[in-house]
Formats: sequence, C-alpha cells, structure tokens
Amino acid sequence: MPRLVTMSKDLNADLPWLDALVWDEQGLLPVIAQDAASGRVLMFAWTNREALLETAATGRAVYWSRSRRRLWRKGEESGHVQLVSDIRTDCDGDVILYSVTQEGGIACHTGRESCFFYRLDGENGPWVAADPVLKNPKDIYK
Amino acid sequence: MPRLVTMSKDLNADLPWLDALVWDEQGLLPVIAQDAASGRVLMFAWTNREALLETAATGRAVYWSRSRRRLWRKGEESGHVQLVSDIRTDCDGDVILYSVTQEGGIACHTGRESCFFYRLDGENGPWVAADPVLKNPKDIYK
Repeated sequence: MPRLVTMSKDLNADLPWLDALVWDEQGLLPVIAQDAASGRVLMFAWTNREALLETAATGRAVYWSRSRRRLWRKGEESGHVQLVSDIRTDCDGDVILYSVTQEGGIACHTGRESCFFYRLDGENGPWVAADPVLKNPKDIYK
Repeated sequence: MPRLVTMSKDLNADLPWLDALVWDEQGLLPVIAQDAASGRVLMFAWTNREALLETAATGRAVYWSRSRRRLWRKGEESGHVQLVSDIRTDCDGDVILYSVTQEGGIACHTGRESCFFYRLDGENGPWVAADPVLKNPKDIYK
C-alpha cells in the first residue's frame, strides 16, 4: 500500500502547521463543514493528522470515522464529495472549519442538504425535521 | 440560590427533547454557534443539559465551560451576549447548532468577529490570522 507509506512518511516530516494544532488525547480534532456558497453548516465530524493532511493536499474533505476507525473520504460511497476551498482553525487551535462545495448538494446520509435538519420547535420541543429530503437514501447508497 | 433549585427541578422533569439527544459519557454535547445574519461560524463550545435547557428557556446562549467546570453565560464578562433564534441538532442528535445574533459583533476573546480567524495558507501552511481585531481585548475585559 504505497499510498499509506507515503502518508506515513509525510506524517513524520516536519509539519509545523499540524503540530500547531491542539490534538485531543486520541489524536483527534472536531471538524465543522460549512457550505462555501450558502453558508449552511452541513455536518460535524472528526479528523486526525492523516485525514487533515490529505484534505489539505488534495482539496477533498477527508475525515476520521470514529465508529469505523478508518479514514473516511467523504463521498466514497454516496458520491457526495466535498471540495475544500478553505481550512480554518479557531483561537485555541482545537477545532477545524472546512469551507466546502458539496457535490450533489447533499451532505447528510438521510438525503438532506445538511445534517442539521432537526429544529427545536418552541422551548420545550419537540425536535422537528425542518428540511426536505432531496434524494431517497436508497438511491444514494446502492 | 433559587435559580439553581429551579433549574434542577426542571432537569428532573420529563423533558423528551433533552432525552432525545445523545449525550457523551460526560453528559456533554458540542455546540456550534453561527451568526444568524452573516452565516459566519462564530465559535465552538460545549453544553450540558442545564446549559441547553437555560438557552432554550431564555433565548440567551449558555455553554458548559469544561475548563472552569461551570455554566458559562456567553457575554457574562465581555458583554458579548448571544441571542439565540434557532436551536438545531443533527441526524445523530449528538451536536447542537445555535443560530445567534452576536451582540457587539464580536464572539472571540481576541476581539474578532469569529474564533475561526486562522486560515491555512497553502497546503503546507502556515496558519495566518485572516480577520481583523475589531476591539482590543483590554477594552473588552476590564
């Protein structure tokens, strides 16, 4: 797997911008993905050094899947790739913000534009699905 | 402290919308605060049941400060209160998104609009402070 060898090599290189970040005890950071055009917050996920390095190098959003314990190249199953135009971190250097162009206009596995589609209706709830399903998930994940 | 007694009472009540969320092992959830007008992602913080309940009830953003281990009513020192017009959660129910009106136009303790002011300049960095300081922090925290 020459790809991984290359990435490992890069990871061991001197990368001050990665070292400047404040990684948690698991070597992860939270990532917010925001639509570069609409400003909509699309999703929240996690990254590690390898995922962030690949994102910066390729311009395609890569995350670390905590449940699957592997790199998650967004869109690898759905085709809903995210092209990253801007990478930011916050004043504490412990959160990442990707500005993305969302291919297909769908970030959520439910077929919606954004994963943040549940809106609290009144101060006592309930949560209401406030955004339309743009595509049936059965037609996304074949 | 009648206020706290009241809140504790509420916390023990039947609150399905709070129970519906997937709290982490420390009883916390990440929160993204987004400017309702500009769409700018302003900050990232954490909430617990009490902070989220108070936010929903009062319309003012309250967080849980992990470092100080207490409720953090945003703006309590700076005056930079956040008025919350919309509370959302994501498809997994484990992240909160506040749409806020940021009083003073400054969310960051550095005196900037947003905490996400460091932009990665090129794929190898460095991180560059890309947003202006709107107000000297010395004049915010007196």
